Amino acid sequence: MGFHAYAAHREKGALTPFVYEPEPLGPHDVEIRISHCGICHSDVHLVDGDWGSVGRYPMVPGHEVVGTVAAAGPAVRHLAVGQRIGVGWQRGACLECDWCLAGEENLCAAEVATCVDQHGGFAERIRVDGRFAFPIPESLASERAAPLLCGGITVYAPLRRWARPAMRVAVVGIGGLGHMALQFARAMGCDVTAVSTNPDKEPEARSFGAHRFVATREAKALRSAAGTLDFVLSTTFLSQDWKGLLRALRPNGVLCFVGAPDEPLRLDLGAILGRQLSVTTSAIGGRPAIREMLEFAARHGVAPKVQLRPLAEADAALGEVRQGNARYRVVLAA
Amino acid sequence: MGFHAYAAHREKGALTPFVYEPEPLGPHDVEIRISHCGICHSDVHLVDGDWGSVGRYPMVPGHEVVGTVAAAGPAVRHLAVGQRIGVGWQRGACLECDWCLAGEENLCAAEVATCVDQHGGFAERIRVDGRFAFPIPESLASERAAPLLCGGITVYAPLRRWARPAMRVAVVGIGGLGHMALQFARAMGCDVTAVSTNPDKEPEARSFGAHRFVATREAKALRSAAGTLDFVLSTTFLSQDWKGLLRALRPNGVLCFVGAPDEPLRLDLGAILGRQLSVTTSAIGGRPAIREMLEFAARHGVAPKVQLRPLAEADAALGEVRQGNARYRVVLAA
Repeated sequence: MGFHAYAAHREKGALTPFVYEPEPLGPHDVEIRISHCGICHSDVHLVDGDWGSVGRYPMVPGHEVVGTVAAAGPAVRHLAVGQRIGVGWQRGACLECDWCLAGEENLCAAEVATCVDQHGGFAERIRVDGRFAFPIPESLASERAAPLLCGGITVYAPLRRWARPAMRVAVVGIGGLGHMALQFARAMGCDVTAVSTNPDKEPEARSFGAHRFVATREAKALRSAAGTLDFVLSTTFLSQDWKGLLRALRPNGVLCFVGAPDEPLRLDLGAILGRQLSVTTSAIGGRPAIREMLEFAARHGVAPKVQLRPLAEADAALGEVRQGNARYRVVLAA
Repeated sequence: MGFHAYAAHREKGALTPFVYEPEPLGPHDVEIRISHCGICHSDVHLVDGDWGSVGRYPMVPGHEVVGTVAAAGPAVRHLAVGQRIGVGWQRGACLECDWCLAGEENLCAAEVATCVDQHGGFAERIRVDGRFAFPIPESLASERAAPLLCGGITVYAPLRRWARPAMRVAVVGIGGLGHMALQFARAMGCDVTAVSTNPDKEPEARSFGAHRFVATREAKALRSAAGTLDFVLSTTFLSQDWKGLLRALRPNGVLCFVGAPDEPLRLDLGAILGRQLSVTTSAIGGRPAIREMLEFAARHGVAPKVQLRPLAEADAALGEVRQGNARYRVVLAA
């Protein structure tokens, strides 16, 4: 009766078949028969031990889970057996602190992460707190809904907080996160710029909604964008010309990070104070934002571009993401 | 018929009597008979040449001007001869750009600074664009209104933008700006913490409205404040334990600079991303904010603590500010 999954048994270890006994189904829990699970770059970091002692082995990665309700605890009222639902990075929170009460459960100090504290979604089944499971709108295909649940909300939440229609928004890094950010920003009515080191990505970036493309390897490209942007969303972990990106901001402009580069940002306050610039950060999103994001994506046709792989090829698929070869999101299918 | 003023004739030069011929009174201009002019630390920086080639000599400092309208151009409709008015850091802008149209004239690229581009307020008279002159509410004494016009708006504008009643606000640096920030934050209904290197300032900080006092020279003081603040307003140019101040922020917390420390801020994004912290900056304020601030100060009894000096002692008074001996704002009186 165990749950069949794929797990890494040591740091950087290959993903191999693994069977575990689930925790008993709690009153608020749901058991999900998983149909799809997206692969996020965080899964690579967790398996590879890049974040220190965060993970424990054996580790079942996966936190972009879509499937149907197979069983529900007696306190679950908003989900029914057979219903299609999704789970993202977070599977639990205290639901009592200031942040939980405000619908910002992602800021709860007692956050339970889907595949860090327990076993994740590279599996046939999973049990999670049903309060962190979200109905998938009917028009969203499951394999396209999966990457929205972590990657999607990661870029939607800061856009929702900071961007406004007609704002000049740039997305730095056109990958798994960036290609969704371009679509969201375009659907929000923003003026959208794609910023990438790779000039080959221009045609696709435009197809995702970019009005223009800045190739940062061309020396003058960023310089000619000086003073033209209101909001810069950095979706990359790689170091960039942050000074140039700050110069590209207009007064009141905001540079937002959803991933932290390894080295600290050297912020010359004297250079940004006269324009009242800000640097900010954003980490996934709360339950109201996730629900809104799924509905927004369905309404506006925002959908990640995915490559499907069978669950049995989880290890090879994780390798593709590790190499940066995903175009743009790899999703495992049962 | 010249204007009698006090000017520095070279970098770091003493302020000595100086007479100049004013520009002709333009249609929108007012001539002010100055009764009071506050001394801001920026005046020291300008006289001392700390900001490179910004200033030109002879230089008449002073940009916290209060006086009465002595003459008004034909296009001036909102001010009358004899009326008591004030002028701050900014004396002009294009009034056509996005920022001017939005009432954020402080962000206008064509900003005209009161004592940088033309002669300032250490004088008996001054002529400025009347659109950057503000009526002083009747209940505000002139010598107390003067420091509000630059120092006051510098701290009021970011509080107005970021703070909300019941927020946990800390003011770093209890000097000319900080002692006004404490009063504004208290009057806005915030929970107010004063942060200073100087433990002797505690009683006065409490009298300005602080609910508590953190002496940063005591090793554990800042550490025990970890995770307790929503908004930290740094009013000092001196380097601080920025890491400790960022640790003191709760989720969604904001660290705001109104003055730029000499060295860049090293921002460890990985350490702040999970709490969604922001670093922001603020530079004086636009016309709507200045008018609102003067009315707010009058209504709530916010008033700087000032030391009056006669205009003829401008040089000695500037020296007091340069030495950091002002408690808390020095104001020249005609």
